[in-house]
Amino acid sequence: MAKEKRVQQITDMEADFAQWYTDVCKKAELIDYSSIKGMFVYRPYGYAIWENIQQELDRRFKATGHENVYLPVLIPESLLQKEKDHVEGFAPECAWVTVGGSEKLEERYCIRPTSETLFCEHYANVIHSWRDLPKLYNQWCSVLRWEKTSRPFLRHREFLWQEGHTMHATAEEAIAETKQMLEIYADFCENVLAMPVVRGVKTDKEKFAGAEATYTIECMMHDRKALQSGTSHYFGDGFAKAFGITFTGRDNQLHNPHQTSWGLSTRIIGGIIMTHGDNNGLVLPPRIAPVQAVVVPVAQHKPGVLEAANDLYDRLRAAGIRVKLDDSDQSVGWKAAEYEMKGVPLRVEIGPRDMEQGKCCVCRRDSGEKILVPLAELEAQIPALLDAVHDGLFARAKENLEAHTRTCQTLEEVKDFMEHGGGFARTMWCGDLACELKMKEEAGVSSRCMPLVQERVGERCVCCGKPADKMIYWGVAY
Amino acid sequence: MAKEKRVQQITDMEADFAQWYTDVCKKAELIDYSSIKGMFVYRPYGYAIWENIQQELDRRFKATGHENVYLPVLIPESLLQKEKDHVEGFAPECAWVTVGGSEKLEERYCIRPTSETLFCEHYANVIHSWRDLPKLYNQWCSVLRWEKTSRPFLRHREFLWQEGHTMHATAEEAIAETKQMLEIYADFCENVLAMPVVRGVKTDKEKFAGAEATYTIECMMHDRKALQSGTSHYFGDGFAKAFGITFTGRDNQLHNPHQTSWGLSTRIIGGIIMTHGDNNGLVLPPRIAPVQAVVVPVAQHKPGVLEAANDLYDRLRAAGIRVKLDDSDQSVGWKAAEYEMKGVPLRVEIGPRDMEQGKCCVCRRDSGEKILVPLAELEAQIPALLDAVHDGLFARAKENLEAHTRTCQTLEEVKDFMEHGGGFARTMWCGDLACELKMKEEAGVSSRCMPLVQERVGERCVCCGKPADKMIYWGVAY
Repeated sequence: MAKEKRVQQITDMEADFAQWYTDVCKKAELIDYSSIKGMFVYRPYGYAIWENIQQELDRRFKATGHENVYLPVLIPESLLQKEKDHVEGFAPECAWVTVGGSEKLEERYCIRPTSETLFCEHYANVIHSWRDLPKLYNQWCSVLRWEKTSRPFLRHREFLWQEGHTMHATAEEAIAETKQMLEIYADFCENVLAMPVVRGVKTDKEKFAGAEATYTIECMMHDRKALQSGTSHYFGDGFAKAFGITFTGRDNQLHNPHQTSWGLSTRIIGGIIMTHGDNNGLVLPPRIAPVQAVVVPVAQHKPGVLEAANDLYDRLRAAGIRVKLDDSDQSVGWKAAEYEMKGVPLRVEIGPRDMEQGKCCVCRRDSGEKILVPLAELEAQIPALLDAVHDGLFARAKENLEAHTRTCQTLEEVKDFMEHGGGFARTMWCGDLACELKMKEEAGVSSRCMPLVQERVGERCVCCGKPADKMIYWGVAY
Repeated sequence: MAKEKRVQQITDMEADFAQWYTDVCKKAELIDYSSIKGMFVYRPYGYAIWENIQQELDRRFKATGHENVYLPVLIPESLLQKEKDHVEGFAPECAWVTVGGSEKLEERYCIRPTSETLFCEHYANVIHSWRDLPKLYNQWCSVLRWEKTSRPFLRHREFLWQEGHTMHATAEEAIAETKQMLEIYADFCENVLAMPVVRGVKTDKEKFAGAEATYTIECMMHDRKALQSGTSHYFGDGFAKAFGITFTGRDNQLHNPHQTSWGLSTRIIGGIIMTHGDNNGLVLPPRIAPVQAVVVPVAQHKPGVLEAANDLYDRLRAAGIRVKLDDSDQSVGWKAAEYEMKGVPLRVEIGPRDMEQGKCCVCRRDSGEKILVPLAELEAQIPALLDAVHDGLFARAKENLEAHTRTCQTLEEVKDFMEHGGGFARTMWCGDLACELKMKEEAGVSSRCMPLVQERVGERCVCCGKPADKMIYWGVAY
């Protein structure tokens, strides 16, 4: 009985959402702490989620013509300083290497917080003619940002991500790339992770250091806070000029190319947890779950049960399902709790009674529903049930997003909304930084984005009351 | 014509092997230099080779029960110092982070040169009972070693690799793991990279810092030098004791687990270049070539040629071949030189005359041989030809290895052998460090390994003449 309790000891999310979150990260064996504050160990189960995310995204990147590369982990201080806005944004949170071997270095090197400067240095070497464009590069790596506070997945000093960096002959082409990559992120979040998103543009205050425009997808968590889940930046030719990148056009003249970058990180795993998880633990969207179905034999000492379970395992594996068989000596109850904690989408139980009926009992992690599946229909039913879990998770998350998005006309309304549970406040905005700052100070909200699909939900700025033509979302962000 | 010359300007390997090597790395667009000495950019074509290597190895690791994880990039100095031999081996070539954000750190952190210490710190948290063993972990990452000299792929300050780290209940099991992983590396080199290997054990002098035993695979390059291509280490319980890792056994007593680690790096790409390359450039083994076959239309302005080339491309792609179609406006001669430089195993040309005959012309990169392949047999012939290229490359490399491995009885014989072209000197050895040092000083050779398959090729130590029972290989190493 002690064992059975072990996997259930997590805090209720209604009692303490932050503690619930940390409990899930630890009990589902996603993460471990290291001796350096803010640097975490991605354990096998956590890393396997990331591998599945990588595989899905990498396929989409390659299908749209992108190539993977790997650039150095260190950036000389002088290189980082070449673009003024960029260095101001990142220098304060860099980790600096000052000693190499036993010698003090002449120049400090920072561990990359992001790699725009390194890509630009390389692009200056390999871009000469319009024939060399576009360059569509992506890099899978880790980056370092010396944050003061940390939380598993949401805020690491070192985290894993991908960073796309592209160069184009024209501004139009670069802007189209920026939007294309945002759409790939949005599609991935909705159709793979079952996380509905709001697509939009950041305000000048919230955009990436050095960018002309930052596009974002924003997701709503269980606690109604926002998670910025992927961003795509258009840089114009600012970096290209700073780094002296030029190409000879078809017109035989020298031009500066136009640049983009876009990134999605392991932070999204925090988003998965806080979008789908419940008081029994993690709930994984089936399309990235390391184990999509676990086969659990019931009364496995009885004749034929283990054979039947093995047969289920073999058939599901052959059908392309990521399946695990747990024939360990733990109790069926312990196993149920364990795989609930780990968020496995389907638990497939088979015992003597099921065998007599030629069926197995499938339990859905999202709803707890139990379905008797005829063994003959296994290969058809299990993929269909995985799709049903995906659809169920998406519908529930979408309902949460819609139920907690409110149109507000005044600052008072936003304050009232935020004080009573909150979520995303949808308002008009005049575009002034002063209003954006006041919203933060008085209502505690930051601007999330100006949605790509605009709607006129009022006539006046929610803050100053002046005529306004931009619809914007506000919220409390992770 | 200027263009056609461009791709052919590489140094002959007979004239200057080192320059030939660097030329291939640059002209085949594998690598670019960065502004930090010894840190390189892996360009798309070079990185794609690594991705294919990763995929092949990762599949083999997972099939043998290993799981991927990711541990921090930084190691606190105090952690690195916990195992005495290990820190002595690595501390002199560490890069140290001393400043985080704007503050000087209380303790220095080094960028990982290898991760034994980090894995041990984590293992101490997650290993408690025999039920927790074995732990079979692997990590794909980059590591830093602050070398004074550098060469593309062969010696980087930062390089990409995988490092496996495992913990076992018994010494026997850990030793079996060490040998299993060596065999996986050997099989991979021979059957995927077409590189014949010598499997063996390192001498105490050459073994990994902190290991009880280091197993290695050694390959011979075109210039007859040795490349250590993969290593697998058995640590006993030394690290486990230093890090306080214990588990309760089935006997209810506390034990220290037994440890292994094993690694293979992007250095192997240097090995591929120096094993198979020729004076026309890179020659890639088909099983990891990013492009296995390139389709080149001949007289592509003539009616039907481009359609026929596109048809070839579609059919090969559907047959699972990694294929590229080059219908650019460069000449057929330029394309031939370009894809020779890039080492593409097969070039498939199709023009009006071929079409009339219902054939295409396939040129093998390894031999230059041209084969007329009936279009109806394409899907059967191309995979067979790729296998033939693999076999041809392996046979040639094996011939090089055997032709330049010589049994020697005395130091004079070794010196004479090395002065006349050299290669691997196979001798008996008494086991004394003094003889090993003398071999280096007088014949310029280091011990490569004591082959796993031992043969008694003499009675006495090649150096001191005392009775000896170990057969050992000597050579000049990269």
